This record gives sequence, structure tokens and C-alpha cells, in this order.
Amino acid sequence: MNQLLLLNGPNLNLLGKREPHIYGNSGLDEIENEVRMLLQKHGWELSSFQSNHEGELIEAIQKSDGKYKGIIFNPAAYTHTSVALRDAISAVDVPVIEVHLSNVHNREPFRRESLLAPVCWGQISGLGAIGYSVAAHAFLEMHKRKDG
Amino acid sequence: MNQLLLLNGPNLNLLGKREPHIYGNSGLDEIENEVRMLLQKHGWELSSFQSNHEGELIEAIQKSDGKYKGIIFNPAAYTHTSVALRDAISAVDVPVIEVHLSNVHNREPFRRESLLAPVCWGQISGLGAIGYSVAAHAFLEMHKRKDG
Amino acid sequence: MNQLLLLNGPNLNLLGKREPHIYGNSGLDEIENEVRMLLQKHGWELSSFQSNHEGELIEAIQKSDGKYKGIIFNPAAYTHTSVALRDAISAVDVPVIEVHLSNVHNREPFRRESLLAPVCWGQISGLGAIGYSVAAHAFLEMHKRKDG
Amino acid sequence: MNQLLLLNGPNLNLLGKREPHIYGNSGLDEIENEVRMLLQKHGWELSSFQSNHEGELIEAIQKSDGKYKGIIFNPAAYTHTSVALRDAISAVDVPVIEVHLSNVHNREPFRRESLLAPVCWGQISGLGAIGYSVAAHAFLEMHKRKDG
Amino acid sequence: MNQLLLLNGPNLNLLGKREPHIYGNSGLDEIENEVRMLLQKHGWELSSFQSNHEGELIEAIQKSDGKYKGIIFNPAAYTHTSVALRDAISAVDVPVIEVHLSNVHNREPFRRESLLAPVCWGQISGLGAIGYSVAAHAFLEMHKRKDG
Amino acid sequence: MNQLLLLNGPNLNLLGKREPHIYGNSGLDEIENEVRMLLQKHGWELSSFQSNHEGELIEAIQKSDGKYKGIIFNPAAYTHTSVALRDAISAVDVPVIEVHLSNVHNREPFRRESLLAPVCWGQISGLGAIGYSVAAHAFLEMHKRKDG
Amino acid sequence: MNQLLLLNGPNLNLLGKREPHIYGNSGLDEIENEVRMLLQKHGWELSSFQSNHEGELIEAIQKSDGKYKGIIFNPAAYTHTSVALRDAISAVDVPVIEVHLSNVHNREPFRRESLLAPVCWGQISGLGAIGYSVAAHAFLEMHKRKDG
Amino acid sequence: MNQLLLLNGPNLNLLGKREPHIYGNSGLDEIENEVRMLLQKHGWELSSFQSNHEGELIEAIQKSDGKYKGIIFNPAAYTHTSVALRDAISAVDVPVIEVHLSNVHNREPFRRESLLAPVCWGQISGLGAIGYSVAAHAFLEMHKRKDG
Amino acid sequence: MNQLLLLNGPNLNLLGKREPHIYGNSGLDEIENEVRMLLQKHGWELSSFQSNHEGELIEAIQKSDGKYKGIIFNPAAYTHTSVALRDAISAVDVPVIEVHLSNVHNREPFRRESLLAPVCWGQISGLGAIGYSVAAHAFLEMHKRKDG
Amino acid sequence: MNQLLLLNGPNLNLLGKREPHIYGNSGLDEIENEVRMLLQKHGWELSSFQSNHEGELIEAIQKSDGKYKGIIFNPAAYTHTSVALRDAISAVDVPVIEVHLSNVHNREPFRRESLLAPVCWGQISGLGAIGYSVAAHAFLEMHKRKDG
Amino acid sequence: MNQLLLLNGPNLNLLGKREPHIYGNSGLDEIENEVRMLLQKHGWELSSFQSNHEGELIEAIQKSDGKYKGIIFNPAAYTHTSVALRDAISAVDVPVIEVHLSNVHNREPFRRESLLAPVCWGQISGLGAIGYSVAAHAFLEMHKRKDG
Amino acid sequence: MNQLLLLNGPNLNLLGKREPHIYGNSGLDEIENEVRMLLQKHGWELSSFQSNHEGELIEAIQKSDGKYKGIIFNPAAYTHTSVALRDAISAVDVPVIEVHLSNVHNREPFRRESLLAPVCWGQISGLGAIGYSVAAHAFLEMHKRKDG
Repeated sequence: MNQLLLLNGPNLNLLGKREPHIYGNSGLDEIENEVRMLLQKHGWELSSFQSNHEGELIEAIQKSDGKYKGIIFNPAAYTHTSVALRDAISAVDVPVIEVHLSNVHNREPFRRESLLAPVCWGQISGLGAIGYSVAAHAFLEMHKRKDG
Repeated sequence: MNQLLLLNGPNLNLLGKREPHIYGNSGLDEIENEVRMLLQKHGWELSSFQSNHEGELIEAIQKSDGKYKGIIFNPAAYTHTSVALRDAISAVDVPVIEVHLSNVHNREPFRRESLLAPVCWGQISGLGAIGYSVAAHAFLEMHKRKDG
Repeated sequence: MNQLLLLNGPNLNLLGKREPHIYGNSGLDEIENEVRMLLQKHGWELSSFQSNHEGELIEAIQKSDGKYKGIIFNPAAYTHTSVALRDAISAVDVPVIEVHLSNVHNREPFRRESLLAPVCWGQISGLGAIGYSVAAHAFLEMHKRKDG
Repeated sequence: MNQLLLLNGPNLNLLGKREPHIYGNSGLDEIENEVRMLLQKHGWELSSFQSNHEGELIEAIQKSDGKYKGIIFNPAAYTHTSVALRDAISAVDVPVIEVHLSNVHNREPFRRESLLAPVCWGQISGLGAIGYSVAAHAFLEMHKRKDG
Repeated sequence: MNQLLLLNGPNLNLLGKREPHIYGNSGLDEIENEVRMLLQKHGWELSSFQSNHEGELIEAIQKSDGKYKGIIFNPAAYTHTSVALRDAISAVDVPVIEVHLSNVHNREPFRRESLLAPVCWGQISGLGAIGYSVAAHAFLEMHKRKDG
Repeated sequence: MNQLLLLNGPNLNLLGKREPHIYGNSGLDEIENEVRMLLQKHGWELSSFQSNHEGELIEAIQKSDGKYKGIIFNPAAYTHTSVALRDAISAVDVPVIEVHLSNVHNREPFRRESLLAPVCWGQISGLGAIGYSVAAHAFLEMHKRKDG
Repeated sequence: MNQLLLLNGPNLNLLGKREPHIYGNSGLDEIENEVRMLLQKHGWELSSFQSNHEGELIEAIQKSDGKYKGIIFNPAAYTHTSVALRDAISAVDVPVIEVHLSNVHNREPFRRESLLAPVCWGQISGLGAIGYSVAAHAFLEMHKRKDG
Repeated sequence: MNQLLLLNGPNLNLLGKREPHIYGNSGLDEIENEVRMLLQKHGWELSSFQSNHEGELIEAIQKSDGKYKGIIFNPAAYTHTSVALRDAISAVDVPVIEVHLSNVHNREPFRRESLLAPVCWGQISGLGAIGYSVAAHAFLEMHKRKDG
Repeated sequence: MNQLLLLNGPNLNLLGKREPHIYGNSGLDEIENEVRMLLQKHGWELSSFQSNHEGELIEAIQKSDGKYKGIIFNPAAYTHTSVALRDAISAVDVPVIEVHLSNVHNREPFRRESLLAPVCWGQISGLGAIGYSVAAHAFLEMHKRKDG
Repeated sequence: MNQLLLLNGPNLNLLGKREPHIYGNSGLDEIENEVRMLLQKHGWELSSFQSNHEGELIEAIQKSDGKYKGIIFNPAAYTHTSVALRDAISAVDVPVIEVHLSNVHNREPFRRESLLAPVCWGQISGLGAIGYSVAAHAFLEMHKRKDG
Repeated sequence: MNQLLLLNGPNLNLLGKREPHIYGNSGLDEIENEVRMLLQKHGWELSSFQSNHEGELIEAIQKSDGKYKGIIFNPAAYTHTSVALRDAISAVDVPVIEVHLSNVHNREPFRRESLLAPVCWGQISGLGAIGYSVAAHAFLEMHKRKDG
Repeated sequence: MNQLLLLNGPNLNLLGKREPHIYGNSGLDEIENEVRMLLQKHGWELSSFQSNHEGELIEAIQKSDGKYKGIIFNPAAYTHTSVALRDAISAVDVPVIEVHLSNVHNREPFRRESLLAPVCWGQISGLGAIGYSVAAHAFLEMHKRKDG
């Protein structure tokens, strides 16, 4: 059965509580449910993992190889500071879509630069919680085209 | 009936022929059809316009006000050079998703900066032709949530 | 009879409707009328032209040579991106005053740099619609001094 | 009776003598007279103060509060180096128009940046001595509109 | 009973041993005792936590919400590299004072930039171990004023 | 019969009249004639097109594919601002030589950077009207070597 | 008897009136009283001086040598522009604590750089009027440790 | 008995599998064996530790003090982002040689800057797995000279 | 009899052998022959000199004064690093065309900047060995126009 | 009788006391005496003025016109921050030699940039108190050559 | 018989005498002997050349092709300024190890950038004279692996 | 007998002929004579050497050790590009005064930066040929003070 990994970085465990004017009102659980239900309609499964520790996220990516069709990854603050996550993504053979809830392009300048984007398949930003579902759609669509 | 505008910037009339290793093999017609069919399933309509002239794109955005639920906009090269398109987007009350076929983050450095992204609702890059469909999904989803 | 050209760049056709907290409530017609009436008191005439197309603005400047005593030019977004308009101004023998409705110095950093200002006679920014009248005053005054 | 303050910064006491190819032939007295006569026609008064001392200019601005309808301020060299004058302008509730005799945009690069412009109402540059009169016109016009 | 959290980042467990010419001779225990005794005089309590792991510091801040009147935080090296700690501070409703033992302004240039300072209440640097006590004084004083 | 396209960008319609100390005294017609006569000696033809509109230049390049052996292109001001022209050149399979009348290296700094040069076959600058003939020589020579 | 100097730079005479959302509601007198009373409890005295003139502040620092145990210095706008004050601080043998009422780290970028901090003992920013008292605490504490 | 510590940072557990065109085909085990055997010939011992967690690497360095003659350290991605590792190296009295498998000078620009190199004894890059042995040679040689 | 100097800088003695995918297959001898034969047809002579020593190239330029109608100069690596060659060109009254075999605009960024171009008559890059002949054409043409 | 003005900027009243390892042991009086005696030997006179106030230095320069053959000016800290002194020097017709006691090129980077040097006749730095005498020699020599 | 070339750049003839606190006490002769003896143990030979002339070093590299198994190159000051040496290294088919005696990473910023490193096999810095031996070890080891 | 070395860099052999509006009309011989005669009056001798070769200048400096009381060095273009000359000056124990004929501060920006100045005793620029004599005065004066 086809599987996706939903990977969330630091402080996203606070989603729904933390700065809702920026990050929206949905908690991480709701978002996971939405994506899971969307995938189930197409017969896919979802695993989900959140960590505030860079090292644990690195290892989650290392272990994804051969197991997932893709990773929906919101690296949060590590987007801008972690070369190690970039190297982990380069090291495995799993396509990654980088997702940001907020429109990083009209926040602080340092949020505009992603160290990870150059090694991901694509990037989606600014669509709020909808961004996660939309990333799932992209993986489903990619799969359909490969098979078609 | 709900309508979206699919707006494409300079040189995208060559899609499918121009540098296919970067931009893919689908022509602009195929992409339009895919998005139109997806929208029709949900009872929405699609208008489509391509131009190599910055001024014509500005005017297409100006006229979109009150007519479209959203714009799927691939500004191509004007992404990086047009303050005038940015001002046009700011001037109207229509949400815009900026779409790029290629992963702009691992090409020439000047392609990393978008003058438009800060005034758009969101940005999708790197997913090839799938990016357009996925943007349509985002508008449909946004609409559902507003109504829900 | 002495003539001035009032030249307006992209998106200024939306004046009064577009972001009034930044650009004010006067439409372009009202502004033209104010400047025309001020000039008529002194026996001068006003021509007016607005375009969203860089090429049309270039050609309006090219044709101004020998016809106008001066150009009141709000290049809007092209202020920051058009070397071609700069070259057009350099190519003709008509003094130009660059006018900006908003105070470009406390907006986005890219609005602070004008490619045109170095080849204009002067620059007026931040005075709202008053800036246009004030530019007309400057041309009248310059003419009086030359003759005096 | 409505009053304006004409404030001039360092080295402007030398006007007419200093580098006339850049700053023109009018002395500071002539300029004051022109502006005063223009204002008198409309029933306004002009006070005038010049200083080479940053501290004295700061205090002139501090004392302007509640006394003047506006300040026509040519900060000369302090435009580019004085955060303290910027803070003084922010601290009072009097609109300020920054005036420069020369076109600062085609001189040394450091003259292009104004620390004061972001906290002024507007900026006029390059019109020579005419710039001062034109600034007075702007204050008269603003007042007329408020009352109108 | 009012409580403060004393939070110390990487390598501060070596305090007193590590580069004493820069960081002083007091160990972390002595500093904790000084601050605790100062607070006890005013009837307040102190909790203390040191970690070399960015993730553990993030979680210490997340858990501080509703429990502490303030955090005295020496983020050490993470000051300059951790957007994730910045996001954690933004996410909770506890005022934070950033403390640095050494004068960061006359060391390597990269130590001059703090990613955290913009979201803290204030910053104290250069006062050695005294900086911690002084931060405690600030929280006591702030509390007194609120109540007063 | 072998054909070249002579393509000229904004304000070059003013050649001979505009700033002759920089751009020389030859009008565009004279230059076209010189190049055409040179080519005719070798049995080649010349088409010529000038436009002030970026969009029209883009389309002239798009249509050159399969029709011309090469393009002699003076993009004038668009050299420094048009990513869209760069993309058009990349999209077609026709070698382009970028020609500048003046020595762009000792004018304003922004004239030193060409967005187009990296995707052209070569660049010739500073030789005045001679630069166009010399570009034609290069295409003739290239052709001779291919055949030889 | 031990003495401290409270030194305040340009525009701080307006404290309490000027932009209270940034600088708070306390006037300079109140702040002086608070610090004086705190010091009197420990048997110390306070001198106080404010000036808008860079030269007067320089001379106040030059004269402090041998007279004060320390200077609590809010250089305000001169923080960012005065190398001369930096040289004065280097020239005397009196420890200086630089104090800022507002959190300079989340205001305009130019406020982040202090020319003085590298030659001061320490820096306190963002704590409002409390920052002054807290600086006094630091001098008292330093003195106690030296004697202890 | 003399001991060296072989310390490896994030993603180096994947060595031999990860991007072999950049990092070579040797696994971490093979490299450890080679270095261990080289040292054993000279009567030295090797300890080895790899971690993806910045905090664990910090603590490994902290504990090395007094135990090892030197550390052969490949900090991988943390080279470019970890001030905390730099501070740890500064805090201990053990010489460190920074080793990179690939030639960091012809990869992405951000890989050219090492935050650690200034506090290490030396740096070796580009020699592949040979770099580790060569670092061991350097420690042996240094020891011989000290004793000699 | 009219003479040109063909001057070649460091490593160009290896032409044809060194990195032929960048610099082409023609050796320096062949190129000299081509240019000489072209000139002979028009009754001109060619001298040629290559050196790897900056000082020798400086002296070749110094001695060209009054002897040559022009210099075709490929300064190779010294293009980007030699202010001394720039000064030599400024010091003599001989027009120089700077020639580069490769398209310097799409190689390493440091190859884009020429210290010499601002003091040369013109620059030709990217046309391979053809660039030399084309430069000779330019000198012949310039001469014809002067005489004509 | 020929006269020179010896002008000294902020903190130079402390010379001999302030940081003697940087600025030397000679007080300002001794330096004045040395220069005066040197000039007297050649029948010239010396006036001397020191101020910590930028405005006073500006006015000293303004008043020098027509009175002095030259100014030996050590602007100290104002070298790096005062556009107003630069404008004053430009405004008068007296040659100025800028003198620095210390070698500004191996101190803090901001000391390397002089806003005044471009409008002075020359600059002498690093020679300690000797620099003043040497500047006097230069004025004497210049005068001799003019007369000779 | 296998041969290495030991190539040393400007001022290295002074080794042992010049700034021994930076470059150590060994003269160039001693270093050559050490490396030669190490190589002789493995049956290899060493040639050695030092020059202060960039051109001579270029030619030494050009002549190394086909003759040496590798070059141990300390380019000294030319590391940071010579594009010509970089081109020479690119032009030959001999692996080069760049060696620096001092730790270039904690000296002046301009010493951190190597123009040569991107085209060398590897770089060794900071190990003093040991760096040369260690480079020889690397060549021996590389050879063993190729043969093995 | 005390000796000075007068060292002149590239293109200074052309002095008097080359760009006299910048460098003056005196030839190098005249300048040498002036300095020699000045020194002879004080019983000192002058050696003089000019070269266009960086390597020869390096060696002239290397050989100066123990032979000269000082070097008057006009490094001309190498001022801005030669780290090797900087290292040579650092390596010897002879004070050097860097002399420039023109005012390098108001020419091209790259002439403002001297790689040599930080390791020289001082720098004199802008005084024309007088600068050399003045440098000689400085050495005489320094010697007198040492002896005095």
C-alpha cells in the first residue's frame, strides 16, 4: 500500500495555539486527519511525525528510504538554518515537498531563504493548512501520471 | 458560476517546445485542458490568457476584479523584474497563487527572488504541470472552507 | 501657447480605487483637472496620457521633443525597473519632474531607488495629489525666471 | 496667523558663494524673501533659521511644535548622517518637507540616502531655489484642502 | 508564589572552566545561587535548566507558559543560529530577557547579531555574572510597577 | 538563401539624434545599409526590426527559429532588465551576438551587467556602428568554418 | 562619596511626550529621581546631564575621569552615528553602561548597530525606564564585588 | 596509551550509500578501520563516535578534555551552521583537525565557510577517505616533534 | 606600413591543448596565421607576443606607442586581476580591443569583471578564435572611416 | 605674512593622555610648538584651533577663506561621519591636508573610510606627531614651486 | 621512478626568518629534506622550486604535465590573487594539493578565500611544516589505492 | 652612512609622459634628484629602483633588510592587488612609507583600498611629486627623535 510521511519541525506541536494570526487555528491533529482522509479516498496511507530536535528529523528522513512514496515536510524554523536536513534529503531517494503555512515572502527577510528547497521536488507556501492537502494531491497526481 | 483565471506570462506560449528538460513536455493547451476538466468536475469554469507583453498582463489583472474567484498566475520571467505586476495584484481584490513549473530554487540566483510573491496568497514551485492543478485544488478547497 | 505633458505610468488608471490609504482618494481625472485649471490661469495648456505599457510611455517621451515645455511624470512601478524610460528621457531635450504620490522612502526598500531621477530635472514625492500641482508651479516659475 | 518655519542646515549660510554650478547663484536672503513674499500674498508668515550645529537644528525642531503649520527643511549634509534630526522630526507633530537644491540622485552615492525622508511628509529635490517656493505652495494647498 | 526560570544554553555547563578571560570565573552553580538568594529576599522562587541540545531548550520554553513570570535566558551560541528558539519565544506568553556574559559587541562579528533579541523583552550584555542578577532585578521591578 | 536578423531595442529609432557623443552620428538606416551591403557581397540577406516594446522583441526572437542563421541584437536598455528576452533567446535555436554601440564598461555601473550575455554566443561592445558589421563578419566566418 | 553620572543624549529632554508607545510615559525627571533614590539607599550620589549637542556630551565624558564610578549613558540617536563619542569613552577610565529604553533589535535596521557598545562595559536595551535602575544596580554590585 | 577521537557529524552514518559521486564508496566502518590500523602500527588507540545530534557532538567534545591527544573531526553540515560546536572546541584543550571528504571549495558557496576552522589546529579537505588517515599522520608527527 | 600587435596573456601558449571544450582546438600559431593573412590582404602587418609574465605584458604595451595602429589583446586571467595592465593601456595612445575566446558571462562570477575594459576601445567575447579576426576587421574598418 | 591653520577635531584636546599606545605621548601644545617653530624658520605663521563641536569646526573652515595658505586638519572621529565638514572644505578655496596620527588602515574597518579625503589636497596617516610637521613641509614646498 | 614537485610561492624563500610566530622556525631547506626523506622511504623522488614571480610559477606548473604524479603547492600570497595560476592548474593533468603553513581561517579575511582551491584535488592548512609531509602521505596513499 | 631606498612600481617609468593631468609633469629622474639632494643636505644617501615586475619589487624589499633606514615606496597599481608585496613588507624589519602621487580617494573606487597600508608605517597621498620629499622628511625626523 502506498504511503506518505507527514513530517513537521520545531514548534509545530503548538499549532492552533501559537500566533494564530500567522499560523491559523487548526491544530496539528486536525491537519493530519484531513490529509489522512484525503489519502484514504485514494487508497493511500499516512504516517506522521513531529519533532523539535533537528537530529530526530534527520533520522526520520534517513529511515524513509524505500518506505514512502513521498514526504510532506514542514521544516518550520529549520528551513532557514539546517544544512544537515538538506544533506539528509539529498541522501535519500524520496521526493519531498516543502510546505509552509504562512507566506514566507512577506515576513522577516531571513524567512525568505530556504536551505532545503533546492533539493526538494517543490515548495508550497502561504496557503495555510490547505497547503498540506494540496501537497498530498501533488503526490497522488505524480503517481497517476507515472502509471498512466 | 464560479470562475478562475489561468494567466501565463512571457514565453509560455512555447511550452512543450522550449527547454523541455526544464519546463516539461506538456504544451500550454494540455495544461489548460487538465485544469479546466478538474474545475468542471466541481462545477467551476476556467478562462485562460497568455501574453508576452507586461502591459497586457497588467490589464488582465486589473479587469479580473469582481469576475474571478482567483487567479492561477505563472508570471514566468516577469516574476523577477515587474514591480508593475505586483502593484496590479495589490490593486485588485482577487487572491492570486503564483505558480512556477521548475524549481526556481536550484536555478540561477536571480530566479529565487519573486517581486510578486509577497502580495500573492501563496506560491507553488517545482511540481511541473502538476503545479497548476494543485493550485486549482487550493482555490476549490478555500471556497469549501468559507462556505462550510 | 506653452504646453505641459502630464504622463502617468502603470496602474495609475486605477487611482482613487487602488489602495486609497497609500495613494489617496482622487481619481486621475480629478488630478488632471486640478493641474489643467492651475495652468489655464497662467495661460498654459495641459496634455495628458496614461499607459500600462512601457513601450507606449517611451514613445510618448520620444514625441514630446519640441512640443512641451516640460513633463510631469509619475512613472509608478517603472520608476524602479525601466532603464529604457531613463534612456528616453536622456534622449529628448525636455525637462522632466518625477512625481510620486506616496512617500517612497518609508515603503518597501526597492521603492527607494529611482532609475529615472538622475536624468530628471527634479523629484517630488510624498505630497499626494498636491505633488502634481506643485510640479506645475515649478515649471511656471522656471519659465518666469528665464524670461525675467 | 498661519506660520511656516524655513530651516536650513550646515554650509547653507554660504549659499550663492559656494559651488554655484551645483547650488545656484541665489543667496539665502533672496530665497527667504521669495518664500516670504509668496506666503504674504496668502496671509501667512515665515520664520527663518540657519545653523551649522546639529544640536541647534534639533532644538529648533523641538520648539516648532504647536507654533508652525509646517517646516520647509533643507538639512544639507545632515540629511545623510543625522539620526538625531530624524528622531526630532518624529517627536513633533509638525509636517516637514525636505528640500534639496541640487538633484541628489546624480551626485555621490552617499547623497542618495536620506535618513530624514521616511519621517517627513514629502521630499523635493533638484529644482534649485524654486524648490523652496514649491514647498510653500504645497503647505498652502494642503491647508486649503483641509479647510475646504 | 512568583517564579522565574533561569535557562542556559550550550557549553554553559563548563562555566568557570571555559575561557575564563572571556566568561569569568564563576561556575553556573554560583550564579544560580546568587540569583536564587536575590529572589528569595523578595519572596520569589527560581528554577534552573541548562542544556546543550537546541530541542530541549525549545521544549523548556514551550512548557514555561503560565508557570513563570519571566525567563532569564542565556542562549549562548544558539543566539546567533536558532530561528527555532526565536519561534518558541514568540509562541509563549512569558517575557524573556536575553543575557550574555561577555560584551558580544567587541568579539567576532557573527556574535553581534541576535536572532532572539527582536522577540525578547530586553537584552543585557557584557556585565559578566552580574548580568543575571540585574535581569532578576528587572523582573522584580516590572512586577512592582504593574501592581503599584 | 542565408539570412540574418538585425534586431534593435528601445530608443535605437532615435540613433544619430540621441546623445551623439555616446552613440555616434549614424542613424539606424545607415547602419542597416552597411550591414546589408556587407552581407550581399557574400550572398546573404538581412532582415531588420526595431521596437520599443519588450513584448514585440520577445516575439521577433520566437519567430526567428528555423528562419535565420543568426541574430545581431542590440537590446539597448533591455540588456540590463529583461529576463524575458533572456528566456526567449534560450528558447530558440538561433545563435545571437549581443552588440552595444558604446563601451558599457565605463558608463553607469548598472550598464555593466547583461542579463542576456550568458545565453548569447558572444558579445561585442564599444566599437560604435562598426560593431554591427563586425558581428556580421563573425556569422559569415562561423558559417565558412562549419562548411569548410 | 561614590558618584554615578546619568548621561542622556539628543531628544531625551522630550521623554514622556515623544512617541510614548515606543519610549514610555515617564519623563526624564521621574527617571532621574528613581535612580537617585535607589542610589541614596546605598549611600551613593547621582549627577545628571542631558544634551542635544554631540560636542557637549563628548566634553561631559572627558570631564568624568576620576570623578565618577561609572556612567549610565543613553546616547539615543548618537549611538548609531558618533565615532567621536566612542573615542571619548575610550579616552577615559570610567566604565560605561549603554542603556536604551526601547528594544533596538526590532526597530529600523540602522538602530541595531551601536558604535559605542564595543568600548562600553555593557549594554542594556528594551526594559524601558527600568533599564536605568538596573544599570545602577550593576554598578553597585560591581563595587560590592571589588570590595568583597 | 595515546588516544585519538574520530568524531563524525550528521548523515555520515550513511557514508558509502549517500551520493557516492561526492563522498566516495567507503563506509564509515572501513574508514575507522583504516585509521585504527594506521594508529596501532604506532602504538596508538582510536575511539570513534558518530551522531546526527548537535548536542551529542558538543558533549563528546566537552568530555574529550584530558583524554585524547587530538580529535579528527568531520563536522559535515554543522561545519557551516554551528557556533555551539565552535564554542565547545574553544572550551577544551585538545587540538582538532577538521576533515572534509569532498572539496568544499567547488560546491555550493555556503559550504566554503567554516565556523569551526578558526578554532581548529588545521583543516584538510578534498582528499576523500584519505583525509582521515592523513589527519592521523599529522597528530603522530606533531607528537614525535614535541618529544624529539 | 600599418601594423597591429597581437598580444596574448598567461596560459594562452597552451591554446589548443588546454581545456579545448572551453577554449577551442586552434593553437596560438593557427590563430596568428589567420589574423596575419587577413591583414596582409589589406596590406597591413601583424606582430605577435605571448607572455605569462604580467611585467612583460606591461612593457609590451608601453613600447607599442607610436608603432602600432592598434592592439588585439587577450589578457586571459590578468583581465580580472591586473590594475597595472589597465594603467599601461591608459598610459599609451594606442586603441586596444580586449578579446576573450570563451563567453566569460556564463563562467565563474569573477570572470565577468574586467579591470581593463573601461580603458579599452571595445571588447569582444565568446566568439572563439573568430573573435581575433573580427577584432582585426574592426581596426581595418576604423582606419577606412578615418581616411574616408 | 603667509599663514597656516592647524585645525584639530574631537578628543584631540586629550592628546598625550588618551590611549598613548595609539596616539603617542606628545600633547597638542607640543605639536603646535613644533609646527610653529618649523614655519617660523621659513617666515610663516601658525594659527591653531581645536574643537569637539562639528559646527565650530565647520565655521573655522568657512572663515579660513582668503586668510590662510592652507589647513593642516586632523578631523579625528569626524573623518568618518561628517558630510558637513566635507561640504565646508569644498565650499572654500583653501587647500587642506588631512592628517591622522595613527595608521587608520590597521584599526577598525570604519576608520579606513574618509568622507573628507576626496575633497582635500592630500592625506597623511600613521606617522604620529611627525605627520603634522610633514604636512607643513608640503605647504612650504608647494608655495616654493608656485613662486619658483 | 615516481616523482612529486614541491612548489613554493612568494616570500617562502624567507621561511624560518619571516614572522616565525606565524610561519614557524623551519627553513625551506629543512622542509624539503623532510619531504624528500619521507618519499625516498617509499622509493619516490622530489623536485623542488621556489619563486617570487607569478609567471615562473605558472610555467613550472605548465611543464609538470606528464612528469610528476602530483604537486605539493604552497602558493602563499598568490593563493588569493592569481587567476592565472588557477588557469595553469586547470590546464594540466596533474593533481595538486594546496598547502598553507598557517591557519588561514583565523587571519585577515582576505586570506580565507583561495582562488586555487576549487581546481586543486585538496587543501591542507594550519598544520605548519607538518602539512607538507602530510600532503606527501596523501599522494603515496592515493597511488597505493589506484594500484591496489 | 644612513640610506633610504626609493622604490617605484609599475608604469612609473613613464612618469611625466603618462596622463600628466593625473600624475604631474615631473619625470622619475627629476623626483629622484629632488629627494637625493634633500637627503644629501642631511648627510644621507638614496638608492633608487623601479620595476614593472611584482617579483622584482618583492625581492628588492627582501634585500633591503639591514641596509636601509627606510623605504619610500610608490607601489602604483600593485597597491590594490598584491598580497605578495604586503607579505614582503611584513617579512622585513624596515619601515615603509607608501606614497601616491594622485589623490587616490577621488578616483575609481578600487584605488581607495590599499593592501599594503596596514603593514606600512604610514601613507601619503595626493601631494604630487612633493609627496616623495615629504616622506624623506618623515624618515629624517623619525631618526632625529630616536637619537634625541
